[in-house]
Amino acid sequence: MAKITLVLGGARSGKSAYAEKIIEEAGGGMYLATSRVWDAEMAERVQTHQDRRNELWTTIEEPVHIHDHIAKTDKPMLVDCLTLWLSNLMDEEADIDQETQKLCTSLRGAEHDVVLVSNEVGLGIVPDNALARKFRDHAGRLNQAVAQTADRVLFIAAGLPLTLKE
Amino acid sequence: MAKITLVLGGARSGKSAYAEKIIEEAGGGMYLATSRVWDAEMAERVQTHQDRRNELWTTIEEPVHIHDHIAKTDKPMLVDCLTLWLSNLMDEEADIDQETQKLCTSLRGAEHDVVLVSNEVGLGIVPDNALARKFRDHAGRLNQAVAQTADRVLFIAAGLPLTLKE
Amino acid sequence: MAKITLVLGGARSGKSAYAEKIIEEAGGGMYLATSRVWDAEMAERVQTHQDRRNELWTTIEEPVHIHDHIAKTDKPMLVDCLTLWLSNLMDEEADIDQETQKLCTSLRGAEHDVVLVSNEVGLGIVPDNALARKFRDHAGRLNQAVAQTADRVLFIAAGLPLTLKE
Repeated sequence: MAKITLVLGGARSGKSAYAEKIIEEAGGGMYLATSRVWDAEMAERVQTHQDRRNELWTTIEEPVHIHDHIAKTDKPMLVDCLTLWLSNLMDEEADIDQETQKLCTSLRGAEHDVVLVSNEVGLGIVPDNALARKFRDHAGRLNQAVAQTADRVLFIAAGLPLTLKE
Repeated sequence: MAKITLVLGGARSGKSAYAEKIIEEAGGGMYLATSRVWDAEMAERVQTHQDRRNELWTTIEEPVHIHDHIAKTDKPMLVDCLTLWLSNLMDEEADIDQETQKLCTSLRGAEHDVVLVSNEVGLGIVPDNALARKFRDHAGRLNQAVAQTADRVLFIAAGLPLTLKE
Repeated sequence: MAKITLVLGGARSGKSAYAEKIIEEAGGGMYLATSRVWDAEMAERVQTHQDRRNELWTTIEEPVHIHDHIAKTDKPMLVDCLTLWLSNLMDEEADIDQETQKLCTSLRGAEHDVVLVSNEVGLGIVPDNALARKFRDHAGRLNQAVAQTADRVLFIAAGLPLTLKE
C-alpha cells in the first residue's frame, strides 16, 4: 500500500533534505523537480539541491503536469516542490482547483510511496500586493487539500519535524 | 464550566473551519463576526465563510465591542477573528492593552464555551513599514494574553491541529 | 554536563520571556545581548526586555563576537538573539558559515547551560528584495545548524512551547 507524505515548512527550514532522507532510507527513487530555473539565484538553489542528491535518484523536470508522473511512477517519488508548481500554474493562468483535484486523484491512485514538499507561506503580515495575497490563498488551500489526501503530514522547523498527521 | 479555546493559524490554514467544527459538534451557537467588509476581495472572503455556516448558527456582526457579547452570550460562541478586531481597534486608535484586558475578563466570566480564531503573523521577515511592525507587535501580545486566559490553544497548519495547551 | 537549548519563535511570540524563565529557574546567569540600539523603536524594545530582568542577571552587550563569551562563561547564559547577531554579521560582511561554525564549536565546549533565542522568519511570502531573501536564507541555515548542535529545541507560539527536539 503506497504511503503519501506531505512535508511542510518555511524557507530554508530543511524540508527538502528531510523529504529526501525519507525516500533515500527506502532505497531511493524518482526526483520530480517542478522549478523553472529563471535566474542565477534560482539556479544556485537548484544546484545546491542537486548536489545533495546522488546515484540513488533519477531526476525528472516537470513544471506543470506532475499528476501524470505521479500516477505512473514505478518507484518511490519525491515532488519538490508544490509551491513552485503552484507558481507555474498561476503563470499559465491554469484552473488551480482543477489541477489540485487531478493531483489528489493521482496521489490516491499512486502505486508507490510519494513524498511532497510544500512551503507554508501564510504566517507573516498580509502582503501589500494583490497577486501575493492571491498566491498565499491558493497555497493555503492547496496545502489543506494535499494534507487531507496524505497519510502523513510533517511540519519542519530548523530541520526538525513536528507531526501534524500520521 | 465554560471552556475557552484559542485557534491560531496562518492565512488559509483552515483555522476558521476547524473552529466552526468545534462549536458545531457541540450543537451550534453564536457566530461573532468582527470583519468590516471594505472591498470586493474581503466581501468574497466573508461570503465564503458564511456559505460554510448553516442553520446551526446565529450571526452577530461587531467589529469593536466584542467583550459585551462574550460576557452575555447564552450559547457557545465563535469569535472570528481577533486579528480583524485588532485591526479595527487600531483604526479607531483605541487603547489596545485596555481592550485586551476587557476581552480576557469577559472570557474568564463567560458562561458558555467560547472559541476564538486568531492569525499568527510574526513568522515572516520584519515588515518595511512601521505600522505593519506595530500591528504585528500588538497581534503577538494579544495572542499571548488570550492564550494565557484560554483553557486550550491549538495551532492549525494545512487544516491540521497541533496542541499548544490543553 | 551543560545543556544547550534553542528557543525559536516569531515576533512577539513570548520566546525571550520563555528563555529567560529557563535560566531564572536555574538561579539566573549571564544575559548576552546582541542588539545594536539604532533607533527609538529598538531602544524601547531593549528597555522592555531589560525591565523584565532583575538582580538574577548580569548583562553583557556583544553584537558580533559571541562565541568567546559562550566558551568562557562561568554561569548559565542566555543569548538574545541570534537573528540580530546574524543581522550584525551581515552588516559587517562577515563570513556567516565560518561564524556559525565558531558558534557551534563554542556551544559544544560550553561548561554551563546556554539558552539561545532565535526568530523563525521563513514562513511568510517570499520577500521582494534580494537582501531580505538572503537574510532569510542565512537565518534558516543558522537555525538548522544550531538546532543540530542543541540538546533541546522549542518552538514558541503565543507564549506556549512545542517541543521539536529533546
